[in-house]
Amino acid sequence: MHEALQQFIETRLPLIDQRLHELIMATNMPENLKKAMAYSVDAGGKRIRPLLVLATLQDIGKRSDDALTVACAVEMIHTYSLIHDDLPCMDDDDFRRGKPTNHKVFGEAVAVLAGDALQALAFRSLTELGSTPPEKAVAIMKLLGSASGAEGMVGGQILDMEGEDKQLSLEELETVHLNKTGALLSFCIEAGAILGDLDEKGSAQLRTYAKNIGLAFQIKDDILDITSTTEQLGKTAGSDTSSQKSTYPSLLGLEGAIERLEYHHQTAKEAIGFLGDDSSMLGMFADYIVERNS
Amino acid sequence: MHEALQQFIETRLPLIDQRLHELIMATNMPENLKKAMAYSVDAGGKRIRPLLVLATLQDIGKRSDDALTVACAVEMIHTYSLIHDDLPCMDDDDFRRGKPTNHKVFGEAVAVLAGDALQALAFRSLTELGSTPPEKAVAIMKLLGSASGAEGMVGGQILDMEGEDKQLSLEELETVHLNKTGALLSFCIEAGAILGDLDEKGSAQLRTYAKNIGLAFQIKDDILDITSTTEQLGKTAGSDTSSQKSTYPSLLGLEGAIERLEYHHQTAKEAIGFLGDDSSMLGMFADYIVERNS
Repeated sequence: MHEALQQFIETRLPLIDQRLHELIMATNMPENLKKAMAYSVDAGGKRIRPLLVLATLQDIGKRSDDALTVACAVEMIHTYSLIHDDLPCMDDDDFRRGKPTNHKVFGEAVAVLAGDALQALAFRSLTELGSTPPEKAVAIMKLLGSASGAEGMVGGQILDMEGEDKQLSLEELETVHLNKTGALLSFCIEAGAILGDLDEKGSAQLRTYAKNIGLAFQIKDDILDITSTTEQLGKTAGSDTSSQKSTYPSLLGLEGAIERLEYHHQTAKEAIGFLGDDSSMLGMFADYIVERNS
Repeated sequence: MHEALQQFIETRLPLIDQRLHELIMATNMPENLKKAMAYSVDAGGKRIRPLLVLATLQDIGKRSDDALTVACAVEMIHTYSLIHDDLPCMDDDDFRRGKPTNHKVFGEAVAVLAGDALQALAFRSLTELGSTPPEKAVAIMKLLGSASGAEGMVGGQILDMEGEDKQLSLEELETVHLNKTGALLSFCIEAGAILGDLDEKGSAQLRTYAKNIGLAFQIKDDILDITSTTEQLGKTAGSDTSSQKSTYPSLLGLEGAIERLEYHHQTAKEAIGFLGDDSSMLGMFADYIVERNS
């Protein structure tokens, strides 16, 4: 990882973690629900989505006191989706980020409700932006509603479920990922652009960047699943092959998948050429996504 | 039911049903998810929440082209909560409004996701109010976020679960209901007041009304559970007694519960005295809530 990116992440991560925790603690609710929500939110993870919001603003040279709240709202959406994804009726996972999953600790009913409450809190948090004009707040909430709902993340999860044990075409596989993970990643960049008053031309470039790093992220995940050990990944390697899931390597071969990864990496970087030299955080993020080992 | 109220409901119900259906159909999403969302939303029910939004505007003598959208947003929140409530890990219900529950038809995973997507669509719909200034839209979304989330409905569901098979005090029982059902009912009235530009004094009166009809509604439900037959109710009568749930009659006796019902009924009606004579829709709603037989 580029040193500048590492430094950026190291300074921002504690701010994100703290604000996330604060947003939950400041909400008046039953103790057990609060514990369940905080359990999953405080479990950490890479925080890629909130970091992308902050990196976008950094790159366009703007500041916003509300950036951290927007960053936390999208992380709450991401976290609620993981809690629901892990449920026995969905992926039935017992562990997440090395800790027992939410329903394993709090029971399924509380896990469903903790997820529901995190979604509500994400939207409510966006109604309390102190230094953003209301029309921009509405625009950001509209984007989040689309990116996280039936047209975006939730729709992608349905497509992903429907595609299991079925041979998808490359186009179908891309549609799954553009919805399931791409829509929320794009939200981060677009919300940053709105907060930073970026013009329409720049925003369109950032959308191209977002779409391409979203796909690159997924292709890299698929490649790591077959080239890494379980130890390196921190999760079971080779699980895609054993579950017969359609992946980029299964459709294109490993070589083909690596080529496609490089294509999306380059397209993403070209799209943000207007941000100038190599010091762009988003550029370094793109490099990190393709170079990471886990 | 008063004839004027009946007429009001008969003219508004088709509009609500149609707009709800349109909001889902206009959203671009996988076919199966759309079917699952439409299945529960189209299942009908009394539509008390959307009707309360419209009745509030009617009573304060204002019109808003966005009232129907706000009314549908709160019904989507209510519907998602029913879908999740019916899940095997929650109340495990097989039937709702005479039809198999969502997860019985579409499977549990799709039911979880259909609920999640309805919540997102509720908030997204509120970002598309055409004739409401953005600062009011933000205020309405903030209210909905609080009323539906951990501080409101979801928090109330947690309290309700925690209170099962336990003797609650009257105060604890009231807290459960004020959160579980009262918060969303209050939202309807408050959102109507915002759309109708009601002054703060009037809005405070309407909040008192909303709180009291919410409690009256619950007390009446508890009373009907022991005084009605299963046939009259359309659901199993006597289920509270058999499940040892804390209810108003179990805490106050049947006589005491009826007295309390009348107290909340009167308090609600007094609070909206400023709306004038007996032609107030909200007044008729209050009468209907205590007089109904199912």
